[in-house]
Amino acid sequence: MTKSFHPPKRLLMGPGPSEVDPRVLAAMSRPTIGHLDPAFVGMMDEIKAMLQNTLRTRNALTLPVSAPGSAGMETCFVNLVEPGDRVIVCVNGVFGGRMKENIVRSGGEPIVVEDTWGKPVDPDKLEDALKANPGVRLVAFVQAETSTGVESDTRTLVEIAHRHGSLVIVDTVTALGGTPVLTDEWGIDAVYAGTQKCLSCPPGLAPVSFSEAALERIRERRHPVQSWFLDLNLVMGYWGEGAKRSYHHTAPINALYGLHEALVMLEEEGLENAWARHRRHHEALRAGLEAMRLELPVAPTERLPQLNAVAVPGDVDEAATRRMLLEHHGIEIGAGLGPLAGKVWRIGLMGQTANARNVRELLAAMEHTLALQGHRLVRGAALEAAEAYYASTGEA
Amino acid sequence: MTKSFHPPKRLLMGPGPSEVDPRVLAAMSRPTIGHLDPAFVGMMDEIKAMLQNTLRTRNALTLPVSAPGSAGMETCFVNLVEPGDRVIVCVNGVFGGRMKENIVRSGGEPIVVEDTWGKPVDPDKLEDALKANPGVRLVAFVQAETSTGVESDTRTLVEIAHRHGSLVIVDTVTALGGTPVLTDEWGIDAVYAGTQKCLSCPPGLAPVSFSEAALERIRERRHPVQSWFLDLNLVMGYWGEGAKRSYHHTAPINALYGLHEALVMLEEEGLENAWARHRRHHEALRAGLEAMRLELPVAPTERLPQLNAVAVPGDVDEAATRRMLLEHHGIEIGAGLGPLAGKVWRIGLMGQTANARNVRELLAAMEHTLALQGHRLVRGAALEAAEAYYASTGEA
Repeated sequence: MTKSFHPPKRLLMGPGPSEVDPRVLAAMSRPTIGHLDPAFVGMMDEIKAMLQNTLRTRNALTLPVSAPGSAGMETCFVNLVEPGDRVIVCVNGVFGGRMKENIVRSGGEPIVVEDTWGKPVDPDKLEDALKANPGVRLVAFVQAETSTGVESDTRTLVEIAHRHGSLVIVDTVTALGGTPVLTDEWGIDAVYAGTQKCLSCPPGLAPVSFSEAALERIRERRHPVQSWFLDLNLVMGYWGEGAKRSYHHTAPINALYGLHEALVMLEEEGLENAWARHRRHHEALRAGLEAMRLELPVAPTERLPQLNAVAVPGDVDEAATRRMLLEHHGIEIGAGLGPLAGKVWRIGLMGQTANARNVRELLAAMEHTLALQGHRLVRGAALEAAEAYYASTGEA
Repeated sequence: MTKSFHPPKRLLMGPGPSEVDPRVLAAMSRPTIGHLDPAFVGMMDEIKAMLQNTLRTRNALTLPVSAPGSAGMETCFVNLVEPGDRVIVCVNGVFGGRMKENIVRSGGEPIVVEDTWGKPVDPDKLEDALKANPGVRLVAFVQAETSTGVESDTRTLVEIAHRHGSLVIVDTVTALGGTPVLTDEWGIDAVYAGTQKCLSCPPGLAPVSFSEAALERIRERRHPVQSWFLDLNLVMGYWGEGAKRSYHHTAPINALYGLHEALVMLEEEGLENAWARHRRHHEALRAGLEAMRLELPVAPTERLPQLNAVAVPGDVDEAATRRMLLEHHGIEIGAGLGPLAGKVWRIGLMGQTANARNVRELLAAMEHTLALQGHRLVRGAALEAAEAYYASTGEA
């Protein structure tokens, strides 16, 4: 007989999922009701409104796709790319590469603007690509590259794309809730995110939002959307306005309870306060890591506070360090991906993970783990540096 | 400020979602851990093994897709259909029609075998279609039509398709856990299901399984699978054998906790016992409904015990009846779809919903609701008929 599963106690400080608050877990355990129940439809409207606030948009077409962030990405591409379309995609990490793959599978022809992993998307290169490829109607890039911890300048990139008559898809999976995503102010046409990063829900849903211009593009399509499940024309029949909702697919009821509660918590805290919280604990973590003689390879102005790439020093074992953190301290941090595999760790401070207690716990465990491997450091210096930072801000 | 959402108390007796046991809800509220955590990977292996048992298959490629049943359907079609492929699809309800839509969007050419809504797929028509279209390599149909409550004879239909050299996709969304799905014995090549029917989980996951012949077909593809998210070559890297799992997408951790617990409960009960339980409570429900002079339009041998289509009598209002059941009794039942809209109700006895208490509650509430509208019936007769059936079986 198979036994019930009881997860071990973990502190999630990797690139996602992040720590989930007990309020969100409790919400997910409330009794399931029907996906067409009037009470459920009312909750869906609240989720849409709270997502609009979180994405800083008035886009009517704002909803959570019933699947993880990768399906949010696919929703954007299958609805906006038509067979034969040339699409400029800026690639500076794993998720830009995945965008390219989505373009190809949607029948489009990707024009790749390569940037160095660990650096932001270069606006000049995007501009050059647009000049070299007149008539391109779609540009895609990642605002917050989860694989490197780098933030690109969405405002500038969107402005350039629009100047050349192109719509823009932006990946904000790791950004949303941790760092500003100003959909309307920046003019983003299609944006997708995930729930398991700075929104601190379990994975399984992908918030998306589409501008009026993007909707117009979808309405003008010459070919049907290749995915039935992700076809926004159909999805909107269920998530659309008014009490009358037509059945499309069965929404993940309890996951949506969780997202609703996480968005209520974010509303209670205030979005700007959440951004400031991520920044503050990032600075404390950075101070502590540097006091252990660890290097953050991403330039300070290009760092995502919620996802910290840390160079693995030459005197320790990358994988063994992660294993020891997990097995001895119950702390999960992330490995590097692609060209950064073995070279960096990725330490997340996303959503509910971003608090002083977790920063202290990570620093203490990391110091212990590195010292065990003979890394030269001054015992206690990391925590002292973090405390000094917190003291300097006047907050704990 | 938006308030936390607390769902009203409901008894789910519609076409899904079904009642979710508190054990499953509790499992879903356990702390989230990482999707690459060794403890989580161990749980994934248990889910695969239990799904194999539930689907009665040894197929290595057996896993839950990270999205609702509709995405399970799409997984089967985008992986098995190539542009230009002719595919025979038997349509006797909404979900057969959705299969056709999936074939078109996958670039295939559907050859539709129409059957009457409320009747099973006709094996002779399938045989004729295969004879008239030599070289067709794929057949698809729905075993348990959720829109009508009809079961088709999967064993016979698969046998015919195989005799003509065709692989077979079978929709078992409403079947799995409630009525036999003998994947290997019947020779099904690709099967998908949902979690929110007779497995009694919240919606959000879609168990799928593929035979060796189906895998071979996928390996031989001339075109890449059009969906990145649902491409089995990639999904298998995460759900495959061994401890080494490569990241594809972030799995819905807590939903999988729930599915694991639901499968543990099914294992504890025994799959055959669950089938017998669905049958027993269906018979009690049927006896009660008939005692109220309600008609079950599907022929007795073609009925799904877990989903009962009931003809709306001429003297009552279809929608008002459902609304009164929901508002006065907290009971959700389903409406008819397509040509059956307004003509039938759909009463589900799926998974944990299938017990004597719920049968009694539904019959009492239905009697009250119909009597209020002036439907002629003998008060108390419905419950008496159900009790007489239970007494005849020697079980409560």
